[in-house]
Amino acid sequence: MVAEIICVGTEILLGNIVNTNGAYLARACAGLGLSNFYQVTVGDNEERLSESIKTALSRADIIILSGGLGPTEDDLTKETAAKVCGKSLYLDEESKESIIAYFKKKGKEPTENNIKQAMIPEGAVILKNNNGTAPGVIIPYENKHIVLLPGPPIEMIPMFEESVVPYLRKLLPGVIVSQTVKVCSVGESLLETKIKDLIDSQTNPTIATYAKTGEVHVRVTAQAATESEANKLIKPVVNELKLRFGNNIYTTDENVTLEQAVVDLLEASELRISTVESCTGGMVASRLINVAGVSDIFKCGFVTYSNKAKRKLAGVKKSTIEKYTAVSEQTAKEMVSGPELGPKADVIVAVTGYAGPADTETEPKGLVYIACNVCGQIKVKEYHFSGSRQKIRESATTEALVLVRECVLDYFSEKTFG
Amino acid sequence: MVAEIICVGTEILLGNIVNTNGAYLARACAGLGLSNFYQVTVGDNEERLSESIKTALSRADIIILSGGLGPTEDDLTKETAAKVCGKSLYLDEESKESIIAYFKKKGKEPTENNIKQAMIPEGAVILKNNNGTAPGVIIPYENKHIVLLPGPPIEMIPMFEESVVPYLRKLLPGVIVSQTVKVCSVGESLLETKIKDLIDSQTNPTIATYAKTGEVHVRVTAQAATESEANKLIKPVVNELKLRFGNNIYTTDENVTLEQAVVDLLEASELRISTVESCTGGMVASRLINVAGVSDIFKCGFVTYSNKAKRKLAGVKKSTIEKYTAVSEQTAKEMVSGPELGPKADVIVAVTGYAGPADTETEPKGLVYIACNVCGQIKVKEYHFSGSRQKIRESATTEALVLVRECVLDYFSEKTFG
Repeated sequence: MVAEIICVGTEILLGNIVNTNGAYLARACAGLGLSNFYQVTVGDNEERLSESIKTALSRADIIILSGGLGPTEDDLTKETAAKVCGKSLYLDEESKESIIAYFKKKGKEPTENNIKQAMIPEGAVILKNNNGTAPGVIIPYENKHIVLLPGPPIEMIPMFEESVVPYLRKLLPGVIVSQTVKVCSVGESLLETKIKDLIDSQTNPTIATYAKTGEVHVRVTAQAATESEANKLIKPVVNELKLRFGNNIYTTDENVTLEQAVVDLLEASELRISTVESCTGGMVASRLINVAGVSDIFKCGFVTYSNKAKRKLAGVKKSTIEKYTAVSEQTAKEMVSGPELGPKADVIVAVTGYAGPADTETEPKGLVYIACNVCGQIKVKEYHFSGSRQKIRESATTEALVLVRECVLDYFSEKTFG
Repeated sequence: MVAEIICVGTEILLGNIVNTNGAYLARACAGLGLSNFYQVTVGDNEERLSESIKTALSRADIIILSGGLGPTEDDLTKETAAKVCGKSLYLDEESKESIIAYFKKKGKEPTENNIKQAMIPEGAVILKNNNGTAPGVIIPYENKHIVLLPGPPIEMIPMFEESVVPYLRKLLPGVIVSQTVKVCSVGESLLETKIKDLIDSQTNPTIATYAKTGEVHVRVTAQAATESEANKLIKPVVNELKLRFGNNIYTTDENVTLEQAVVDLLEASELRISTVESCTGGMVASRLINVAGVSDIFKCGFVTYSNKAKRKLAGVKKSTIEKYTAVSEQTAKEMVSGPELGPKADVIVAVTGYAGPADTETEPKGLVYIACNVCGQIKVKEYHFSGSRQKIRESATTEALVLVRECVLDYFSEKTFG
């Protein structure tokens, strides 16, 4: 089956935003085994949008549109798609109630424009929006399917996963099953070299790698008549990856993030963590607190961006900063070993570095030290990141989580085997 | 004049890469005053590529293609475009020499495939590639212009700026200038209602709104013969927006973020800030530290996710948490008024709330209190956010920055007029 992706939005045509929806939907279609030959971006213009939908209907089975479901006059994707299919719109009371409830929760009243979002093309399947006001819809039309999704990724992605994937799966012959193996501490090139033989000989399952900041995800995808048959094809490949990458694999579950894996490890080890952050400025703590229910193991976090804060809150000695500077192995070490101000933690992780934008001889941009203390056992590592200030901070945050994982695993392996 | 952008590459159709070339070229076209109604992505397939070029020629004056100029058999953009225009290819000796020189510099020999890159459609303008081997070309065709650029951004962008911009400028009448007005504390619907008259009567300049988490950006765009004439058209509209939204406008500079505006305000006011975060877990601190050179005004940050940390680090009374819970106006207030552990700050902002995923009667998901203390003057606000855990935390982070801005402005206006 062939899918075509149409992203609707003048802001994409003006280049004000990068079309990440297109990439997400393309990857999702590929994951479902749908072919994708064209992606089109078009503005909020009825004539051109209508033409794009008609063209897509002439060459694809499933047309996926994102954007243009908002409350304003500009937003006309739903109206245009309905017109192309010769369907009229009706007010769906349940969607209307959802919108009113959404606003009520915020202590606000919806405007008439917002209620417009509850207008649904006849015969369409309604996709609930749990993260915004615009419901999505799927219009079945002459053996084809037009899927309309909201533009904001935070609304579009969960809606696609919760409602569109199950809908499309039913249309597809056989099943496609994927499993993701998430690897940290191994770069993409090195990883690909290490599995070149597997990639070269792939047919079913296929193997694809996706580089993320500080990690690489390896997706193993099999096509088969049933889910259990597909899983049987996937299993030996995943086992082979486990053999090759060992502890560098932090999960084989698509839904488990690095921070979730770290929190799970800390919980299982009954260790509680505190963070002391300079250049990352709270990003490590924030990643850990992404995980719901982390309060049992997250003791507290300190953002010690200034030298004074490093001294007062983390107990770094003035002489250490003077002698070695704030970005040094010694300072990082003291950041995890000073007298603690907060509730006592078993694990302390600290980050100090130069995130730029300045890059000078004395303050080389991208130089970062990360220290981790697990029950008194301290490790400090030096990193050289590149990219923008934001990118360097993100890389440092990921590596801090990777280092915590590594140090906790080391601590227990030494306790057991040392 | 109308431009159409065609990005060529199977890796985009598979979602393996995000199409940043599309965004770059769209922005560049908008900057040149070219209208852009369609962006198309197509794979390295002769038939579909040919169809896409023909369609683009039927509706645009300038067709810009990126990708498919590489040395491999897959790469057929140049051959296909030449075929559509009925032009044959010849070996351009100068391009061939450039390719040989490029390889020589790297201590390598070019393959025959690389020499293929020196084949140029008859009558085309050759665009030198200073960052790779594939030259770009512009094929003039029936009063239209087909621009072929390499796919890697590192080659494409400099080539566009060095060679394509001067070529296109000669074809164009006048310039396009945009200015962005960034508004906080006003939702998109309300904002649009307030400027409906301006939007309805727009011709030149045009007005477009873009909703972001907790803010709305209004872009005013004018077309004129010269930049100063365009600016003259923009100015009265921006002034009208300033009149209508007053202090809710935090900047009229596209490059200034909310956190930058807050840091600028604190610096100008000579106020130093500390953060005390529960559900946002370091995100407010992290946003502030996005701004380079913030160490002069950022004193320190505390992540007090557990009740114990709230008591020990922020001085919240045990009885307050017991009586009112950790997510309450009273707790938020104490989080910004307790004895400070770190270096003394003038401004303290605190966030406490339920980010979910659980949503219970006693812990309603999305309920957040944000408190701000400016030199002893304290304000606490109650918020009801919706969406995922991450979305709620992002919304709370933005509103915390907005509240800091509001409280600092209040403090000075009361000092001046109170």
